[in-house]
Amino acid sequence: MDAAKILITGGSGYVGSHCVVELLENNFNIIVIDNLVNSIRLDGDPLPESLRRAQQITGKNIDKFYNGTTEDAELLDKIFTENSPIDVVMHLAALKSVGESVQQPLRYYQNNVGGSITLLKAMEKYNVKKFIFSSSATVYGEPQYLPLDESHPIGIKCTNPYGRSKCMVEQILEDVCQADSEWSIISLRYFNPVGAHQSGLIGEYPNDIPNNLMPYISQVAVKVRPCLNVFGDDYPTVDGTGVRDYIHIDDLSNGHIVALKHMLSSPKEWFGYNPINLGTGSGTTVLQLIESFEKSTGIKIPYKIVDRRPGDLAILFANVNVAKERLGWKARKTIDEMCSSTWNWQSKNPNGFRNNKIAQ
Amino acid sequence: MDAAKILITGGSGYVGSHCVVELLENNFNIIVIDNLVNSIRLDGDPLPESLRRAQQITGKNIDKFYNGTTEDAELLDKIFTENSPIDVVMHLAALKSVGESVQQPLRYYQNNVGGSITLLKAMEKYNVKKFIFSSSATVYGEPQYLPLDESHPIGIKCTNPYGRSKCMVEQILEDVCQADSEWSIISLRYFNPVGAHQSGLIGEYPNDIPNNLMPYISQVAVKVRPCLNVFGDDYPTVDGTGVRDYIHIDDLSNGHIVALKHMLSSPKEWFGYNPINLGTGSGTTVLQLIESFEKSTGIKIPYKIVDRRPGDLAILFANVNVAKERLGWKARKTIDEMCSSTWNWQSKNPNGFRNNKIAQ
Repeated sequence: MDAAKILITGGSGYVGSHCVVELLENNFNIIVIDNLVNSIRLDGDPLPESLRRAQQITGKNIDKFYNGTTEDAELLDKIFTENSPIDVVMHLAALKSVGESVQQPLRYYQNNVGGSITLLKAMEKYNVKKFIFSSSATVYGEPQYLPLDESHPIGIKCTNPYGRSKCMVEQILEDVCQADSEWSIISLRYFNPVGAHQSGLIGEYPNDIPNNLMPYISQVAVKVRPCLNVFGDDYPTVDGTGVRDYIHIDDLSNGHIVALKHMLSSPKEWFGYNPINLGTGSGTTVLQLIESFEKSTGIKIPYKIVDRRPGDLAILFANVNVAKERLGWKARKTIDEMCSSTWNWQSKNPNGFRNNKIAQ
Repeated sequence: MDAAKILITGGSGYVGSHCVVELLENNFNIIVIDNLVNSIRLDGDPLPESLRRAQQITGKNIDKFYNGTTEDAELLDKIFTENSPIDVVMHLAALKSVGESVQQPLRYYQNNVGGSITLLKAMEKYNVKKFIFSSSATVYGEPQYLPLDESHPIGIKCTNPYGRSKCMVEQILEDVCQADSEWSIISLRYFNPVGAHQSGLIGEYPNDIPNNLMPYISQVAVKVRPCLNVFGDDYPTVDGTGVRDYIHIDDLSNGHIVALKHMLSSPKEWFGYNPINLGTGSGTTVLQLIESFEKSTGIKIPYKIVDRRPGDLAILFANVNVAKERLGWKARKTIDEMCSSTWNWQSKNPNGFRNNKIAQ
């Protein structure tokens, strides 16, 4: 049997590029569409730098790269026609900054919701009905109980347009499965992905001031920023700082590939709508993460405690039983490994993908 | 001062055409965009039949008609450029069949949600920030209390994609207002619009088997259908049949124009997001509606009691205080008037707008 052909949207972003490495290592045929909002292409290169490096890491090539957005129905026509038959779509393309989504809600809804609808319509048209969606723990809103399992209500008290856009897409996916039993859809609800590939060739590099803790820490470590703000130390947690369920990007991308393989090898088990948490199942405070980073890198992170950020939640962590039972998957990497791999990437690439000459 | 220029989407549909009559009578300048999904254009006519008749009723003309959809960003560019400046957009274009939405969720989400996002993006681009949205009582889902007021939670237990699409748009509108305080948005949450213009020239004529009670009753009256199914007589209501808050289409369209005038005359009071119920505030059972129809038309409606429809709610009616206090508006027409005007329209137009030769 030929290897399955996977269309991956947003394939040159942080999660996307790590998934591409894992897909290439598993000999899948890969088509990527990305609009380069969270990646860059260097002068003269046909590929975004993250994908060029993914090929360098694996010694294998992606089949095709399309520069564009899933809002573009004509481009999707071209992609599905030129690459027929596509077996599975992994939809990772989305805008992802919570703060920006509050400022530019229409841009977020157009990209994340509109782009998903257009993509799903194209899939329907070309009779491709296997879909893996990049969702987020943010769909749970304020926890009614912990740990968060997949039966926890979603969409209630989601505090920002980014989170609401993910909820809307999940709702749409559920309705699609209700209407047509031939669809198989897995929504992977990411907790807090951090870290970088062990090669140090790919990792997360926000274009802007980082929203998330780990990229901020690593930019402080590399002295791009002088000091870390810790938002609140009066939460009801062990040291008063917020608790999150950090998951190593290698575990996260592996979760995608495990889900993909299950969907391909036992399709009947995956008919319908299947949300699955990807987390470790345990929480880490901000101060614990800083401490782990300092320990595993030897670098001091100056920080100061400031006021809580409106909308921030105290404690989030996952119940990971569904991933364990249905996929036989669990996260393996420690917080120390998340920190050291982040530092490996950041120190080799202080300017992210803009610096083409990387340490060997 | 020149009369304000209003872009009305879905202007040739049932609610739209009645709003157009009211807008023309009030000397507004009107641009209509409609894709003719719920209306028809007869051979050789530049206008949909409902709009031709709206002009006939009022003796006044709309400025321009565009045949197309609000999903079409290029067409919107053309409309906003050719008709600059547009003062207010009234967005009534939407697919509206609950049952169809369950079968074709992507079509509904693309049209209702995608189409609204594209329209709002165009408004942002052309700096038009006054918006009146056609929402629905369906956003409330299963009532937590009655009567339903505007503070009742929305989006929880919405039972179908149609209702969820309205919720999503409301959520998007709220976020748009949060991000930019220059927007004025009124969402009119319709209860159950019925009836027809007193001229008998315009009214509701579903293309398909009617989903809603009144069009079904009137098609039975005119013998297009043999018998009415009453879905359940064991609800906790006075006679066991479902209770709804029916509102005469004349009252409903008048509510739009009153809202529009308030928005134009005292803009500062309407900055932000303003949901407003349009209903009468009182409920009527299915059997009461049949009885009123028979009484006011002298026509017997054969019916039989059948099983409940899954997803149907027992009782819905509106708290209408906000409309009264903020708009000085309330519904005036009786159930009997709703029935007799429906019959006047239906009997003069047994085939809806397809019959061009109407009784004088």
